[in-house]
Amino acid sequence: MKSIKTELEQLNTNLHKMIAAENPILYSAAEQLFNAGGKRIRPTILFLISKLTSKDKIISTEQKRLAEITEIIHTASLVHDDIVDNCDKRRGIKTVHTVFNNKIAVLAGDFLFAQSSWYLANLNNLDVVKTISKIITDFAEGEVQQGMTSFDSQISVEEYIEKSFYKTASLIACSCKATTILNKSDKNIQNNFYLYGKHLGLAFQIIDDILDVTGLSKDLGKPAGSDLMNGNLTAPLIFTLNKKSKLQKMIDQEFQFKNNINEAIKIIKNTNGIQKAKDIAEEHIQLAIHIIKGKYSDTNNKELLLLTYYLINRIK
Amino acid sequence: MKSIKTELEQLNTNLHKMIAAENPILYSAAEQLFNAGGKRIRPTILFLISKLTSKDKIISTEQKRLAEITEIIHTASLVHDDIVDNCDKRRGIKTVHTVFNNKIAVLAGDFLFAQSSWYLANLNNLDVVKTISKIITDFAEGEVQQGMTSFDSQISVEEYIEKSFYKTASLIACSCKATTILNKSDKNIQNNFYLYGKHLGLAFQIIDDILDVTGLSKDLGKPAGSDLMNGNLTAPLIFTLNKKSKLQKMIDQEFQFKNNINEAIKIIKNTNGIQKAKDIAEEHIQLAIHIIKGKYSDTNNKELLLLTYYLINRIK
Repeated sequence: MKSIKTELEQLNTNLHKMIAAENPILYSAAEQLFNAGGKRIRPTILFLISKLTSKDKIISTEQKRLAEITEIIHTASLVHDDIVDNCDKRRGIKTVHTVFNNKIAVLAGDFLFAQSSWYLANLNNLDVVKTISKIITDFAEGEVQQGMTSFDSQISVEEYIEKSFYKTASLIACSCKATTILNKSDKNIQNNFYLYGKHLGLAFQIIDDILDVTGLSKDLGKPAGSDLMNGNLTAPLIFTLNKKSKLQKMIDQEFQFKNNINEAIKIIKNTNGIQKAKDIAEEHIQLAIHIIKGKYSDTNNKELLLLTYYLINRIK
Repeated sequence: MKSIKTELEQLNTNLHKMIAAENPILYSAAEQLFNAGGKRIRPTILFLISKLTSKDKIISTEQKRLAEITEIIHTASLVHDDIVDNCDKRRGIKTVHTVFNNKIAVLAGDFLFAQSSWYLANLNNLDVVKTISKIITDFAEGEVQQGMTSFDSQISVEEYIEKSFYKTASLIACSCKATTILNKSDKNIQNNFYLYGKHLGLAFQIIDDILDVTGLSKDLGKPAGSDLMNGNLTAPLIFTLNKKSKLQKMIDQEFQFKNNINEAIKIIKNTNGIQKAKDIAEEHIQLAIHIIKGKYSDTNNKELLLLTYYLINRIK
């Protein structure tokens, strides 16, 4: 996105400064993830919404800080998520708990969550503090739901969507809303962008889950099928499950499933499970687009629409 | 403390309500620690300060909520601390990561931290949010410092005190200050109670560390010497180290130290290391008392003084 290139570069510089800990281990643990790159999709969305809903088309200092805070919370959640999922690699590089150990990873995550709370408080906007603090509660709730439905072949699509909201969409929805709060947008606009973020976030998670099945390890930066191997049953599989009893049996016998993950992927690919998952992702993308299309007719809206389409194009 | 008996009972009831998660596992993991009792020393201190610094001697709803938030943060830090220290028992009962597993413990801790942030934001006082959010950053910093100086026989008393501030005293100092902020006390009083909390917190930690060496397992609710066994070198040992080279050697060979923890405790007991540690604890208690004595001459101050003396009497 050309219009926010400078802001994204500044975000990267600031993130390094913001996580500066007195302690070198904490610093390098935290830094590792920021260095790993990532697509910075969340800040991109927030910057575009900042411009879209402000009168002077300028992203305020507070909105830039909010995007940084959101990225720190996201990173903290990844560090703890990798412990919970026993994930060794992320974005092609080793995870914190692999390079250091579980203990350092627990603390590095805590430290990042704490730093984000500190910067959040210093935004001096209670409405924003309340909106953003909801994200971390939802994240923990989502992760535990995921743990409880591990290898549970009875999981429904509704439960999967709920889990995805808590784990992923809540962060995007709440931070989109908070961005408009900082622009003093009216409640209606705030709620619109909450819904935009919610649908985009759900689509985002479903697309990620499809890529876990269809993608190549080198593109994913982690082994293909690694979610499934952890017992995290996602849309493509849930839609397949109704049809292929062999897959069901494999999941019920967790070890067999883990050992035959490639066979499981093959079964999923041979059904219309992936197509059905794509349909739901597309549905949420359309709901997101419906909210912004026509209402905000300028360059930034065009970019936000482009970004929204870009996400769904990853699986086309 | 008779004057705040009702408030402490209400605190226990409210804590159970506040941690109610949609998820039963999160709930029981969190509940376990609240049920384990604990002496509720932190809320007691805060309630007494609330009364002491208010004109009408009434503890406000916000101050009660602040005490609850502080107890939730404290509990969250214990859950993560127990993972980091591999601690199996706390207050005589099994720890969360032992009953469930590391993963659930990481998430239960995150959930509690998140809940505390949420309730904190809803106190609607930015000054308080800023003061309290500092606690969690300090906690993570302290835990990592502890990890880095594990089995490091070169650790100085100053490093030990710094670590203890981050780990323990920051929470008490910041929450004492926040209580006076809620009473709209002037900056001078706010800083006084920050210092009171800081010295009390340091004494508190030093006393705990002495008890780890001198106490009986049944009174401690965990094996005696368990801090030392984890490589967490504390005041009584640091003061002994200068004299007994055998102890030094045992620590440098971590395994020998772990296997001979009782011999190590015996060596410490036979020197004046414990007395020196007691002297520092006493010094901090005196500094704490100096701040409040004479300035606030009513019943609540008498109770706060009694509580302060009570802490030091645990090792007399």
